[in-house]
Amino acid sequence: MLDHPTRIGRLALVGLGLIGSSIARGARANDLVDTIVAIDRDPAVLERVRTLGLADHVTDDLAAGVAEADLVILCVPVGAVGPVTAALAGALKPGAILSDVGSVKGAVMAAAAPHVPDHAAFVPAHPVAGTEQSGPDAGFATLFQGRWCILTPPEGTPPEAVARVRGFWEGLGSVVETMTAAHHDLVLAITSHVPHLIAYNIVGTAADLETVTQSEVIKFSAGGFRDFTRIAASDPTMWRDVFLNNKEAVLEVLGRFNEDLAALARAIRWDDGDALHALFTRTRAIRRGIVAMGQETAEPDFGRRGAKG
Amino acid sequence: MLDHPTRIGRLALVGLGLIGSSIARGARANDLVDTIVAIDRDPAVLERVRTLGLADHVTDDLAAGVAEADLVILCVPVGAVGPVTAALAGALKPGAILSDVGSVKGAVMAAAAPHVPDHAAFVPAHPVAGTEQSGPDAGFATLFQGRWCILTPPEGTPPEAVARVRGFWEGLGSVVETMTAAHHDLVLAITSHVPHLIAYNIVGTAADLETVTQSEVIKFSAGGFRDFTRIAASDPTMWRDVFLNNKEAVLEVLGRFNEDLAALARAIRWDDGDALHALFTRTRAIRRGIVAMGQETAEPDFGRRGAKG
Repeated sequence: MLDHPTRIGRLALVGLGLIGSSIARGARANDLVDTIVAIDRDPAVLERVRTLGLADHVTDDLAAGVAEADLVILCVPVGAVGPVTAALAGALKPGAILSDVGSVKGAVMAAAAPHVPDHAAFVPAHPVAGTEQSGPDAGFATLFQGRWCILTPPEGTPPEAVARVRGFWEGLGSVVETMTAAHHDLVLAITSHVPHLIAYNIVGTAADLETVTQSEVIKFSAGGFRDFTRIAASDPTMWRDVFLNNKEAVLEVLGRFNEDLAALARAIRWDDGDALHALFTRTRAIRRGIVAMGQETAEPDFGRRGAKG
Repeated sequence: MLDHPTRIGRLALVGLGLIGSSIARGARANDLVDTIVAIDRDPAVLERVRTLGLADHVTDDLAAGVAEADLVILCVPVGAVGPVTAALAGALKPGAILSDVGSVKGAVMAAAAPHVPDHAAFVPAHPVAGTEQSGPDAGFATLFQGRWCILTPPEGTPPEAVARVRGFWEGLGSVVETMTAAHHDLVLAITSHVPHLIAYNIVGTAADLETVTQSEVIKFSAGGFRDFTRIAASDPTMWRDVFLNNKEAVLEVLGRFNEDLAALARAIRWDDGDALHALFTRTRAIRRGIVAMGQETAEPDFGRRGAKG
C-alpha cells in the first residue's frame, strides 16, 4: 500500500486514550502510515505507550511532536480541542491536515478553527465507536471496523484534504459519511448523547433511593438495569465536555424524550394498554434494523459472556 | 438426587415461552423432576415443545394438565395469572403447590390468591433473569444460573411449600431471596421496570424525530443508542402487563427519575461541569459492584460478538 494515495507519511496523535491508541494500533495493523508520533501530557500514559510499542516517537512536547506531521489527530476531550489547537497551530507544517475525533462538532469547530493557519487544513472527524473503557490499554486495532466515521469539513476545506482523511478512516475499516456540523450534533444527540444522559441519570437515581438498598440494586440488576450501567461507566471528563458543548441539541432532544415519557406515564396511569403495546411493538423493529445493518450482534443478551454461571 | 427433599414428582408448566421452556430444560438438565407436563393454549407453541422434546406430556387442557401435578408454575404474562389461576384452581390436587414467575407480585397475588383452594399452597416467585427473545426456542437450561429468584409467599403459607419452591430454584442454579410483595415491586421498579420504560421511550423518541432519519439512527447507533434497543425489543404483551400491574411503584420511581433528570438538564444549561463530572464518576462505581458480584460480564462492550467487523 506504499503508493496508496491516502497513505500518511507522519501521523501525530495527541491523546493516547481508548480512541487515540486504537487509531495507532489500527494504522499500524493496516499499514496506513510510515511513522507514528504519540503525544500526551500524562507521563503515565506515555510510559504505557512506550511499553505497548504503539508509536515510533513518544513525547509530551506538543509543538515538537506535530512539527513534521502530515496528519495530526486530536484525541482529547472536546473541551480541550480548542486550547490544544491554539497551542500547536504555530508548529503545523505547510500542507498539514488537522483532524479530531470529538463527539461534538459545532462547538469544537468554533473553538478550534480560528487557530488553524492558512497553510494547513482542518477536517473534523467523529468515529462513532468506542467502549466504556478508557486509557491506552483499552484500545484495539479493530475498534473502527464496520463503524461509521462522520466528517464535518467547514466550507472551503480543500477536497484533497477531505479525501485523505476519508481514505485514512476507510483504511481503519470505517464507513465514512460527510454532513454539516449542526446536523451531526443533532444526530448524535439522539443516537449517543441523550442515551448516555439518561443512563447516567437512572444509575444515579437508583443509587439515591432510600427505599431500595444499593445491594439490592446490584443483585437484581439482571432485570434490565445493568444494561444502563455500561455506558454510565464511560469516561466522566469526556462526557462532561460532550454535554457542555452540545447543550442546545441535547436539551432539544431531551425535551422530546420528556414529552414522550410523560405520554407514556399517562398511558400507564390511565390503563391504556393498547398504547403501551403499540409502542413496545414498534420499538422491536428498530432493533431488527440495527442488527440487519451489522451494527449490533444478533445474539440474545448481547451475547454476554463471563458473568457468573 | 432421587431422594433430595425438594425433588418434584410431577411438574406442570403453564406457558412455554422463554421462561417456561428454560425451566423445563433446566429441570431436566439438573434432574429436579420425574415428569414434566407442558400446557399452552397456542398450538404452534405446543408443536415446538413436542419437536424440542421439552416435556413428557404436552396439552392445551389446563385442568387435565395440572390435575396430578405436585408443582404448577404459571409462566404467563402477569395480566393472565389471575384468570389462569381461576381456571385451573379446581383441578389442583391436595398438597399441590402453585407458583408463578411474574415480574410483578402485589397485583398478581391479589388477583390469584383468592382462587387458590385451601388444600393447595401458593408460593409466588420471580426469577430475575431473561433475554430480549421470546418463545420456546429462546429458552436455555442455564438461564437462571447465578441469578436471583425472589419468593414473596403470603402470610400463612406453609414453610414446607416455601422450602420446596426454594429448593427447586436452587436446583436450577438460582440464589433465592424472600421479601414482601410490596418491597419486591419497588425493587423491581428501579432495577427492571423503569429501565425498560425509558428504553422503550428513547427508542420511540428516536423513531419519531423529524430532523433525524431512521436510517441515521440505525447507522450511528453504536454511539450508545443500540444498548437501549435490546430491552426495547422485549415481549410487548409481557411488558404491557408489567406496567399496568405495577403502576404505583413505577410511577413513583419514574417521578424520582424525572426530578433527577431535570436537575441534570439544569446543570447542562448552566454549565455546571462539576456537578456532571461528580455524577458521572459516582455511576462508574455501581457498575464495578455489579461486575464484582458476578451479575455482569467484565468484558468491554458486554463482550459483544457477531456484529459486522
